[in-house]
Amino acid sequence: MPDEISATATAANDDIVLRGMGSFHVGGRVAEISGKPVRAMQRQPGGPLTPFDPNGQYAVEQMYVQYFLPRKRKGRVPLLLWHGGGLTGVTYESTPDGREGWVNMFLRYGWDVYNCDAMERGRSGFAPPEIWPDEPVFLPCRDPFERFRIGDGPGSWNPDPAKARVIPGNQFPVEAYTNFMRQAVPRWLSTDDAVIAAYVALVDKLGPCVILAHSQGGAFAFRVAEQRPDKIKAIVAIESATAGNIVDAPKLKDVPVLMLFGDYVEQHPRWAAFKSIDAEYADAIKAAGGQVDWVDLPDLGIKGNSHMLMQDRNNAAIADVIQQWLVRKGLSDEQ
Amino acid sequence: MPDEISATATAANDDIVLRGMGSFHVGGRVAEISGKPVRAMQRQPGGPLTPFDPNGQYAVEQMYVQYFLPRKRKGRVPLLLWHGGGLTGVTYESTPDGREGWVNMFLRYGWDVYNCDAMERGRSGFAPPEIWPDEPVFLPCRDPFERFRIGDGPGSWNPDPAKARVIPGNQFPVEAYTNFMRQAVPRWLSTDDAVIAAYVALVDKLGPCVILAHSQGGAFAFRVAEQRPDKIKAIVAIESATAGNIVDAPKLKDVPVLMLFGDYVEQHPRWAAFKSIDAEYADAIKAAGGQVDWVDLPDLGIKGNSHMLMQDRNNAAIADVIQQWLVRKGLSDEQ
Repeated sequence: MPDEISATATAANDDIVLRGMGSFHVGGRVAEISGKPVRAMQRQPGGPLTPFDPNGQYAVEQMYVQYFLPRKRKGRVPLLLWHGGGLTGVTYESTPDGREGWVNMFLRYGWDVYNCDAMERGRSGFAPPEIWPDEPVFLPCRDPFERFRIGDGPGSWNPDPAKARVIPGNQFPVEAYTNFMRQAVPRWLSTDDAVIAAYVALVDKLGPCVILAHSQGGAFAFRVAEQRPDKIKAIVAIESATAGNIVDAPKLKDVPVLMLFGDYVEQHPRWAAFKSIDAEYADAIKAAGGQVDWVDLPDLGIKGNSHMLMQDRNNAAIADVIQQWLVRKGLSDEQ
Repeated sequence: MPDEISATATAANDDIVLRGMGSFHVGGRVAEISGKPVRAMQRQPGGPLTPFDPNGQYAVEQMYVQYFLPRKRKGRVPLLLWHGGGLTGVTYESTPDGREGWVNMFLRYGWDVYNCDAMERGRSGFAPPEIWPDEPVFLPCRDPFERFRIGDGPGSWNPDPAKARVIPGNQFPVEAYTNFMRQAVPRWLSTDDAVIAAYVALVDKLGPCVILAHSQGGAFAFRVAEQRPDKIKAIVAIESATAGNIVDAPKLKDVPVLMLFGDYVEQHPRWAAFKSIDAEYADAIKAAGGQVDWVDLPDLGIKGNSHMLMQDRNNAAIADVIQQWLVRKGLSDEQ
């Protein structure tokens, strides 16, 4: 594994000054398992055999949230970062090649940042098979490389990044692609309702907030906003992979939305399809009197962006596009 | 679920000033899956059906590390925080009742803090069943309550914390016990070698360091130190659940070790057994000319500590005991 690629730890020129940092879990339910045999378990090699009774109540379907509160707060409400499918909040931390990610950048803009691991992923944990009977999906290295607009078509991935076939001009740090795959975690295909319930629990806990969501997270953000339109002060949807329920789109008439896409979208039918679904949802919000702004980055002269925009080499430029939009919407003081 | 218990976000009186923060993955290997059928998958409800080919190479057995670098560094080397079985680095973040955890406290002492999710847990991800064929273990709420010296014997747990039977004088924030169970994640019983390999990869990456490890993490710390005795400047073993390989203990003759235990240990045969194993290992280090200091907290007048010392109500007092030991060993400047 190419460990030499990822920086060990990166110090910045400007300090990050926090008035608080920490984490909590939110949401979830208690589920019961019964009728299973008690068995002997050796929990540590060399340790004692002890009886283990799997029957009883389990805490399941909670969500992990890590927060960072800057001393100089400029964002008017908390900023929630929601990642895409098969990933965790690591999406927004350091990039696979060790540069600063959007957690740091939005902290520097002055936002109280709440970075989430969607229910079932990462530090949120997952439930026993008695409660979630289906198998999760694991992605081979090849799959996101071909699908996330990094590699140039089928067969483009290669375990040696120097031999991989990359879309010309691509901004993803391809030399660190294996580090990106280390960030991937399994996902279930049957748990959307529980994911959404945990996100709703977070919004109920925090109150008014802005959601910045990526890919699958975008679909969750719209569905949560349909349930809590009064609490969502804006949605920044980064390449939202499907949108909300079109019949409920009018509920977002008072929720400003920014839809943002990277490069190469029209040439990739999968992404063109998502863009079309998002556009239809945006039209339904606008038809109800709402505001949706749309950014195709190439139209701003920002080219070469993969699906993992927040990890691309120009991730700071894209963060700036988003921050300026939030300032224009009155949600953050000027820098 | 008692959400009102956990603080949403806690601001502190003293700012935390960081010269850097971020994360990376380390270690792991590429594993291959072959001979499986290609299937159609709908990755998002309403999204397109796309072919999914599970065959190919996977990044597995990597470890997630999150780092925080204080502006005023006083620790001479990085401080690595390794959690116990069935848990993640969340162990050291906010306590279940929302107070500051040891990540914040050791940052305030001036340590570069590297908080890990052991290989297989949390943001480290886990491998497909083709690669790890055995099932992971999930813990019902009752199990740690009875086993971690919080509840007063079998049957002491109750879903309503007010009705649970707690060991008199216990320091664990019992009212937030359900939040603690939300931190729990599944663990495999067959992956110790891969866990240790990823920890060794981290030590090789960072160079000289201090390891603060809890429970199962203590056993990993000793086994890693046996492989890299020149790089481990000290081990703080918090209720280490088994130790290293006794025949290799002499390799730690130049690694200062602090063994630390909480209260009620002798009355609980499971913990008395671990303590005995640790004492035997400590004796083997000392017989080879090494230094092991031993702290039973009740001997210092610090009473009522459960197995989750770093989350107990008096967690700051215990952090101070550890910090003073590290200062005495010349590993940190005075406060």
